[in-house]
Parts: sequence; structure tokens; C-alpha cells
Amino acid sequence: MPLLSTEARRAALAGLSGWEETPSHDAIRKEFRFGDFQAAFAFMTRIALAAEKMDHHPEWTNVYNRVEIILSTHDAKGVTAKDIELAQAIEQAAR
Amino acid sequence: MPLLSTEARRAALAGLSGWEETPSHDAIRKEFRFGDFQAAFAFMTRIALAAEKMDHHPEWTNVYNRVEIILSTHDAKGVTAKDIELAQAIEQAAR
Repeated sequence: MPLLSTEARRAALAGLSGWEETPSHDAIRKEFRFGDFQAAFAFMTRIALAAEKMDHHPEWTNVYNRVEIILSTHDAKGVTAKDIELAQAIEQAAR
Repeated sequence: MPLLSTEARRAALAGLSGWEETPSHDAIRKEFRFGDFQAAFAFMTRIALAAEKMDHHPEWTNVYNRVEIILSTHDAKGVTAKDIELAQAIEQAAR
């Protein structure tokens, strides 16, 4: 899975509301907030199923109603099409 | 919910295998490793149900087969009996 070029990464991010590059540019991240823990964990469960199906998994932190998600492709040491695809699935899970 | 004294916190930790105080002593933490993401997320799901029932929630980060859990009681700004109770439930979920 090849790394996205800077241009391709930025073009993909332009289509993903609220996602941003990490300072080192080797990952993308977004923080989500929900009404409570139940809503946050329901969101995480939907993502877990999508991630397992794609065989591509997030790095994520949850504190009560907040979920921070960081996506990168470890083998490629940066952002690939897999991360964009998972970010799109996460956006769908957030709806 | 009162803060545990240093002695009470250490006595409780002595009964919780692998749990340690954070450097600032205002939380306890443990890292768990599983065979894969499915096993890690199944563990998280069991904890989510227990946490919701107790109305006391972890701060946790998952990366593939690893789950790092940090417990503290925000209102008390440190470790209380609620954190020990949740840590015990987490140990049960890990079995």
C-alpha cells in the first residue's frame, strides 16, 4: 500500500470534514464528541466492525463522551488510501 | 467519593496484578495485550458494559491488540474506591 503524496493526502482531507494531518504528517486525526459514554461507545463499536472488515485498525482514545481517532498505515509509515477509506467509514458511523 | 490515602491506594494496588500508579499519583494504569484486535475489542466491550453500570468510566487507548487503561475520579482529582472497583471489574473482564 503506497503512501499518498502530499497533494493526494490534502485532496482527500478536503473531502473529510474535521480531519487534519498530525504535525508530523504521518497520520490523520479527528476528535468526536457525543452526548454521553453510551453514544461514544456505540460509535466505537460501529467502527470496530468496519475496521475488522477492512483489516485496518485505528489508534483511538476514549474519555467518557470524547473519542480521538488517529489513522496511519504502520507498514507504509504514513497515510495511505486505507486510512482515507477508514476515515470515510468512520464519518458514516458518526452520522 | 473521598480520595484514597496513599496507604489505602497502595494496599489496593497490591491486590491488583499489573496495575501501577501514574507518576503524578492521581491515577492508576495498566496495559493489556491480546492476540488480535477482535480479542482486544471484546475485552473493551465487556468493560464498557461494566463501566456504564457503575457510572464510572475509564480513559483508554487501543492500538490493534493493545489496550492501555487509566483510571481516576475526576471530581475527586485522584484515585478513589470507584477506581479500584472498576479495576477489579476490568481484571474480571480480562480473564
